[in-house]
Amino acid sequence: MNIHLINPNTSHHMTEQMTQSAKAVANAGTQIIGRTPKHGAVSIESHFDEAMSIIGVAEEVRQADSENANGMILACFGDPNIWAVRELTDKPVIGIAQAGFVMASMISTQFAVVTSLQRTVIIAKHLLQQYGYAHLCPQVLAVDMPVLALEDDTAFKAIINKSIEARDNGAGAIVLGCGGMSHLTEAIEQAVGIPVIDGVKSAVKLIEAMVGMNLKTSKHGDLAYPIAKPFLGDLQRFGA
Amino acid sequence: MNIHLINPNTSHHMTEQMTQSAKAVANAGTQIIGRTPKHGAVSIESHFDEAMSIIGVAEEVRQADSENANGMILACFGDPNIWAVRELTDKPVIGIAQAGFVMASMISTQFAVVTSLQRTVIIAKHLLQQYGYAHLCPQVLAVDMPVLALEDDTAFKAIINKSIEARDNGAGAIVLGCGGMSHLTEAIEQAVGIPVIDGVKSAVKLIEAMVGMNLKTSKHGDLAYPIAKPFLGDLQRFGA
Amino acid sequence: MNIHLINPNTSHHMTEQMTQSAKAVANAGTQIIGRTPKHGAVSIESHFDEAMSIIGVAEEVRQADSENANGMILACFGDPNIWAVRELTDKPVIGIAQAGFVMASMISTQFAVVTSLQRTVIIAKHLLQQYGYAHLCPQVLAVDMPVLALEDDTAFKAIINKSIEARDNGAGAIVLGCGGMSHLTEAIEQAVGIPVIDGVKSAVKLIEAMVGMNLKTSKHGDLAYPIAKPFLGDLQRFGA
Amino acid sequence: MNIHLINPNTSHHMTEQMTQSAKAVANAGTQIIGRTPKHGAVSIESHFDEAMSIIGVAEEVRQADSENANGMILACFGDPNIWAVRELTDKPVIGIAQAGFVMASMISTQFAVVTSLQRTVIIAKHLLQQYGYAHLCPQVLAVDMPVLALEDDTAFKAIINKSIEARDNGAGAIVLGCGGMSHLTEAIEQAVGIPVIDGVKSAVKLIEAMVGMNLKTSKHGDLAYPIAKPFLGDLQRFGA
Amino acid sequence: MNIHLINPNTSHHMTEQMTQSAKAVANAGTQIIGRTPKHGAVSIESHFDEAMSIIGVAEEVRQADSENANGMILACFGDPNIWAVRELTDKPVIGIAQAGFVMASMISTQFAVVTSLQRTVIIAKHLLQQYGYAHLCPQVLAVDMPVLALEDDTAFKAIINKSIEARDNGAGAIVLGCGGMSHLTEAIEQAVGIPVIDGVKSAVKLIEAMVGMNLKTSKHGDLAYPIAKPFLGDLQRFGA
Amino acid sequence: MNIHLINPNTSHHMTEQMTQSAKAVANAGTQIIGRTPKHGAVSIESHFDEAMSIIGVAEEVRQADSENANGMILACFGDPNIWAVRELTDKPVIGIAQAGFVMASMISTQFAVVTSLQRTVIIAKHLLQQYGYAHLCPQVLAVDMPVLALEDDTAFKAIINKSIEARDNGAGAIVLGCGGMSHLTEAIEQAVGIPVIDGVKSAVKLIEAMVGMNLKTSKHGDLAYPIAKPFLGDLQRFGA
Repeated sequence: MNIHLINPNTSHHMTEQMTQSAKAVANAGTQIIGRTPKHGAVSIESHFDEAMSIIGVAEEVRQADSENANGMILACFGDPNIWAVRELTDKPVIGIAQAGFVMASMISTQFAVVTSLQRTVIIAKHLLQQYGYAHLCPQVLAVDMPVLALEDDTAFKAIINKSIEARDNGAGAIVLGCGGMSHLTEAIEQAVGIPVIDGVKSAVKLIEAMVGMNLKTSKHGDLAYPIAKPFLGDLQRFGA
Repeated sequence: MNIHLINPNTSHHMTEQMTQSAKAVANAGTQIIGRTPKHGAVSIESHFDEAMSIIGVAEEVRQADSENANGMILACFGDPNIWAVRELTDKPVIGIAQAGFVMASMISTQFAVVTSLQRTVIIAKHLLQQYGYAHLCPQVLAVDMPVLALEDDTAFKAIINKSIEARDNGAGAIVLGCGGMSHLTEAIEQAVGIPVIDGVKSAVKLIEAMVGMNLKTSKHGDLAYPIAKPFLGDLQRFGA
Repeated sequence: MNIHLINPNTSHHMTEQMTQSAKAVANAGTQIIGRTPKHGAVSIESHFDEAMSIIGVAEEVRQADSENANGMILACFGDPNIWAVRELTDKPVIGIAQAGFVMASMISTQFAVVTSLQRTVIIAKHLLQQYGYAHLCPQVLAVDMPVLALEDDTAFKAIINKSIEARDNGAGAIVLGCGGMSHLTEAIEQAVGIPVIDGVKSAVKLIEAMVGMNLKTSKHGDLAYPIAKPFLGDLQRFGA
Repeated sequence: MNIHLINPNTSHHMTEQMTQSAKAVANAGTQIIGRTPKHGAVSIESHFDEAMSIIGVAEEVRQADSENANGMILACFGDPNIWAVRELTDKPVIGIAQAGFVMASMISTQFAVVTSLQRTVIIAKHLLQQYGYAHLCPQVLAVDMPVLALEDDTAFKAIINKSIEARDNGAGAIVLGCGGMSHLTEAIEQAVGIPVIDGVKSAVKLIEAMVGMNLKTSKHGDLAYPIAKPFLGDLQRFGA
Repeated sequence: MNIHLINPNTSHHMTEQMTQSAKAVANAGTQIIGRTPKHGAVSIESHFDEAMSIIGVAEEVRQADSENANGMILACFGDPNIWAVRELTDKPVIGIAQAGFVMASMISTQFAVVTSLQRTVIIAKHLLQQYGYAHLCPQVLAVDMPVLALEDDTAFKAIINKSIEARDNGAGAIVLGCGGMSHLTEAIEQAVGIPVIDGVKSAVKLIEAMVGMNLKTSKHGDLAYPIAKPFLGDLQRFGA
Repeated sequence: MNIHLINPNTSHHMTEQMTQSAKAVANAGTQIIGRTPKHGAVSIESHFDEAMSIIGVAEEVRQADSENANGMILACFGDPNIWAVRELTDKPVIGIAQAGFVMASMISTQFAVVTSLQRTVIIAKHLLQQYGYAHLCPQVLAVDMPVLALEDDTAFKAIINKSIEARDNGAGAIVLGCGGMSHLTEAIEQAVGIPVIDGVKSAVKLIEAMVGMNLKTSKHGDLAYPIAKPFLGDLQRFGA
């Protein structure tokens, strides 16, 4: 089984880190292929960064399809352009936010998201509303640090503090709100003492689950392949 | 990996059928142990049948725990007493309704449930509301046939007809609303032409996914183990 | 008019206490028959305790029906298995949580629940969502003390403090979140200075109201009598 | 116990009819005082008719208060100006729409409203949303006949037909959407075969219930007495 | 273009103030006609004050209609009797609360309301729920000062403080919750540093917008003209 | 006042048509500058087409900003990438879906959307949910014809038929669900007999309204300018 982990930002290091996280939980027979797009922002921290990622991601999705990937992971917590991506392929595709929410909803009654920048809180809230989990996740907290700074120790401690705040305020589980926190999951869980869920690992296991029961993205109706048509300008290669 | 598939009703034949469905999608290293409780109704078709299943199910959950099961499936579409069951163990537990909803939410924008008796529609609707999927599943349709009659050909055709009705009314995927339909999944999917999701198979894959990332039911807060205390009468054995 | 007050837990003292509260507001012609089930937990403080109460409660409901009770009260604030109980009889049945919510919704725009253990908060929240009162009750507060400790003075003061907190935060009325607080209602109201609503008393008056207009549980559709069928094991006596 | 039944429209005949319905279910010790306001429309069939009723109703509420009424019924299905009325008195006040919804929510999982003019459907829907019952009442049907024509046989048959339609579409109980249907309740119930709920009778029993447990409209916060201040023009008598 | 700004309270000074605010943003060709009703309270600070305003407002609406006003503003933040007013005319009518919410929803993802008395918070919350903006406006804060005291310096500072509190808690814009704050908008915005929206100005621009595209209140269905019928007593002049 | 009408698809003819509609309602002093992006699909009929439009649109937004546009219209009914676009500028920006919904919410209690392809219905439904209008718009109907075929007579008749269906099912106003229907608005309104709202015209008037009161997109928090950072590959020109 081949799963393409597509990092919508263009930072190879982050792709590598998330790929390691993914491999750590993948089944023996699962191959994780980390992919960094050629086009896009070096980190995704706004609606604009998210929107712009479609170019690079669409290329990667088509590439994955042509390489007979069995499923794909959209490895940015905002699940940017998830419905567009699902239109492009009949393989199962999951964003790491939805993946984390799904896992949290099966092991707790109330969970919390701890994310990076304050300005991305609204992105998580919109996703919770759209997917249906808003009433299960009353707390979305931010450490207000940039995605690319998540590796230093200050960030690590801030994430732990916010997670403890969420726990003491009733959360039964924590969903980490950024793919860049993936490698810290176990350490945070140990410090906080309740389940801490990484969307990357969750996505791997959910794609394996879907592939394992031969479940594909519905091509009836809303997520049917886009109608072939001309695209102009720089996007010509995406058109019919 | 051992997964206990606990059928909340007492019909061995149905346990057997669902266990076959489960095995059909389980990973090579996964053992499915079908369990039929000693106490309970021969089929579950009402809130009362659901409520009464707790006695038999609680025994099976404790048994599974003592046998070091890695996870458990509550194999009745009403997910009866799911929060109570989750309190009893730190192993992941999933009901087949939630399992089906989760899968459907990842491959479609709108799905439908096709279930057995009309009177169980409200049970599915309450679950959709509680889990957060109500806005993703505007159609819950019933063939209005008893659970134990689902094997005959009339039922089969009725399920197909309702599924086609749902599809033509906008559903991108069908969730089968009864464990007793599990063995018909492929045949129905072939007839309807859109993804048809069986909660039993979905549950197997989700438990495997959770176990594979070492995710356990949160014991912090709402789902902590029940406080040990005396139980009286026939239930004495469940008490401290 | 005979109203059976069924305490889902097996503590006679608590049944007695709630029966006294009930009698204090019952009409002259109303007889309150307090019933303690033979089977079940000595207190109800978890989803599991709730679920297990069905055995004892189902017996009491059938008994009440055979004694021509006019209505029944399910006297535990989680309204455990309320839909199952309503299926068993065409007499009106009310849980004390729904009863308290109904009363609060008629005298205030925003109310609060003050309950016992923190872990039961989620139970109240699920009920508020299911019955439709979530937007009217933004505050569910717990003193985090066990049900059977509610009689001591520390508990009494804690309930008052939480009620004052709720009031100062905008609540126009307090619903007491445990039948075991019933006897304290007046004292709490006096201390807090806004209406304090006991679910037990509310339930008595609502059952009298329903009986007085000859209103019965609908037997059309979702709450029809359960289909008669065999029950196995310890539950054989509940089957056909 | 004195309950003032205040008909917000100025049709004495309708007041009389509703008063008869009220008396039919009132307890032995309860006196029903039907009140027709001096000012207002002869029937209420629009937002405007509703809004204008406040003048006459406010006078009646003050009168009731000065006569030491124990509670009041706002006997128009739109519950016009209910929050304003509740501000004016600490006695319990209930509108017949909320009263009907409360009763229906205690005996069924899904109910329907059958009302008079099509244009009043939105009024019922707004109330269902505000009170929290929208998800319990997916059907609001109108016979599209004026309030004052509800007594003729055509109307009677139309109400029965709509109620049967609602029942066959899943409603477990019918709430009659106009005080002018009150006298037909039993006949409709007999024809439809499921509980049919009259808001007038429901309101009587709910006020008796509230008075019986000494429950008063909260005067803390949102429903506190209006601040005394000058009113100008024709409304001077309502001012300080 | 003539726009009638109808102040539902009877304070000429406040009408004057709001008319100035309105004129400050009106297009060159737009005439703002401030109207103070003859009947009603000198300030509106309760559901009762709101309800009573219909008499004076209805007269003004009819007057405006007869003077061929192009549109009308209901200049009280509770949008009192808005649906009734919309029934009376086919001209566009907007309340200043809805106007403020609309503007805020187009320039921010989350906004806050800062209002006068604490007891009016519930009125704003009900409007947010009814119009659909509740999830966009999680904060409704009050300075708890009477409407007619809003001009003094203490009030001004309190409004700024509450606005800063809202901003620091995530609001991207502030909607001023009282027409009496209109003249302070710029000063508050300067102090708070995020967009501060006055409902009066918003309403002027929205009415101009609607008139400019020839958009009228729908007279099909729910907002059709009220059926002509007799009104009794003081209200006779409003009847047929 | 300069308003840039940005057509997210690359069909000059459609830009032209919408610009004509816009000019027809613009104030005397308002200049409408129609803009067709260099990059993107010739029509937008899927999530993918929507997502890809960001490249061309982002260029146009920056261009508009540099030309001191006063406001911008995103002239595609899916409001594609609206939050991303709002981040890029402090000028007011409105999508034509939100614009149509806003107008409909001010003149009716219930409205309907009539759109082009069936597969775009879900896009409208997601927007209604996100903006808060879902409960005001229970009907989203599609003629199931491609955007670029909307000019022929069959499409015209189909739109009228769907609009009549919506009207007879309770809608008080129709919102046209595609910018390509803009030029047909008056003809449809005449045939249907209730207000028919074009998002393009609505957007012009709303931008004029916002500019007229100096209202700008909030730059505090969620919609602050994107953090400057490198973009790689084809998108380098968008980076820091």
